[in-house]
Amino acid sequence: MTKALGNVSIVLVDVRTPANIGAAARCMMNMGLSRLLLVRPPQDPHGDAGRLAAGADTILEQARLFDSLREAVADQALVLGATRHAGRLRRNMQDPRAAAARVIPLLADNPVSVVFGNEVNGLERADLQLCHEFVAIPSSPAFPSLNLSHAVMVIAYELFLASRSDAGGISARLAADEELERLYEHLQDTLQRIGFLDPDQPDRMMFSLRQLFGRARLDSRDVKILRGILTATDRAANRGKQG
Amino acid sequence: MTKALGNVSIVLVDVRTPANIGAAARCMMNMGLSRLLLVRPPQDPHGDAGRLAAGADTILEQARLFDSLREAVADQALVLGATRHAGRLRRNMQDPRAAAARVIPLLADNPVSVVFGNEVNGLERADLQLCHEFVAIPSSPAFPSLNLSHAVMVIAYELFLASRSDAGGISARLAADEELERLYEHLQDTLQRIGFLDPDQPDRMMFSLRQLFGRARLDSRDVKILRGILTATDRAANRGKQG
Repeated sequence: MTKALGNVSIVLVDVRTPANIGAAARCMMNMGLSRLLLVRPPQDPHGDAGRLAAGADTILEQARLFDSLREAVADQALVLGATRHAGRLRRNMQDPRAAAARVIPLLADNPVSVVFGNEVNGLERADLQLCHEFVAIPSSPAFPSLNLSHAVMVIAYELFLASRSDAGGISARLAADEELERLYEHLQDTLQRIGFLDPDQPDRMMFSLRQLFGRARLDSRDVKILRGILTATDRAANRGKQG
Repeated sequence: MTKALGNVSIVLVDVRTPANIGAAARCMMNMGLSRLLLVRPPQDPHGDAGRLAAGADTILEQARLFDSLREAVADQALVLGATRHAGRLRRNMQDPRAAAARVIPLLADNPVSVVFGNEVNGLERADLQLCHEFVAIPSSPAFPSLNLSHAVMVIAYELFLASRSDAGGISARLAADEELERLYEHLQDTLQRIGFLDPDQPDRMMFSLRQLFGRARLDSRDVKILRGILTATDRAANRGKQG
């Protein structure tokens, strides 16, 4: 159990209040999680945060700091974004219980991150793009917005429960996020080259494609195959130009 | 859904920090709960509490204050105590998911309370006695103690989910806590009268009996039957003395 959960990272992006980081660290410790990644944390993440961590200081001390979400999740196989915003993300959206049930079997071979945005706006569009799948906590439509550390608690609680009841699902070593990002760059480049993508407005389509491949849970071999196709496409396109 | 959850009260006993009350109120609102009962709250439950309630002020304003847990739960049909202390409570202990699944069908006809103790010690023995059943949140053995509002969140979250998926279980109108307390008084009196109970140390045995009847989820008719038996026993004991 604990071993599997050791492969889970909680990533907090642009959190403004140190106390929320401390409270999140305590929740993590309650639920057997230990890896905390902070993207652009507030000035003194160890002041108020320490006070509210109530014994979870080790997690805060060992927290790793990053300047961007992309760096933070570069070595992660699955990046789950916590967000209430469904809309275009709907197909890759799941509730915490379903997410936990799917994530636990993967943990034997793969590092998995759950990413939370700041207290006011949640994850911004640029960061949502980096998430492979999404998790939304069910809540009252009249008052849906959870405090950050309470959202962390619900996700951590579901992961903890699922880790205890894991009957041994099917695992597979997925591609690291870095490989995926290189794939998406290649894809965007190729799609522009062949005139499929509007070079001035590539984002909307790229977002949909990221969601599509995110759902597919690609492994390294899948990525190689796709990049092979792209390379072949690039060559064909160049030949077309020359011809 | 919301209608059923309207029959749930969250009871906070001896909470010391107003901010925790506010945070708990926000969790309640997130999960469609609205009835907050405060037993011996701190001096200014509306100061810091309001700040952290973040929009859940209505819950705080409408919170009812009590001097004792017994008064607070007098009209409740089922009183669930949130505690980590298993021990002698083990037979009446359940996890939040199981508790939610059992509670939701009862809500159509019965008011149900979930009782939380203070931040440091949780529920004290005298208050545990008043609980019919118990709910324990699974957590890491290395760091099991949840912050109060996070414990409220987990329970509220499970109730909210269960209320959405309730397939319509079997309900029944249970006896109010007041009736149960009168039954227990009568029982203790009778058991002492017949020499079953040590009058100097009645608590341990009474505690076990409370747990036993708590599990039984008595309705008013059950209570009447039991009290009828006790009355008959009293008469027989008196006849024995006179004879």
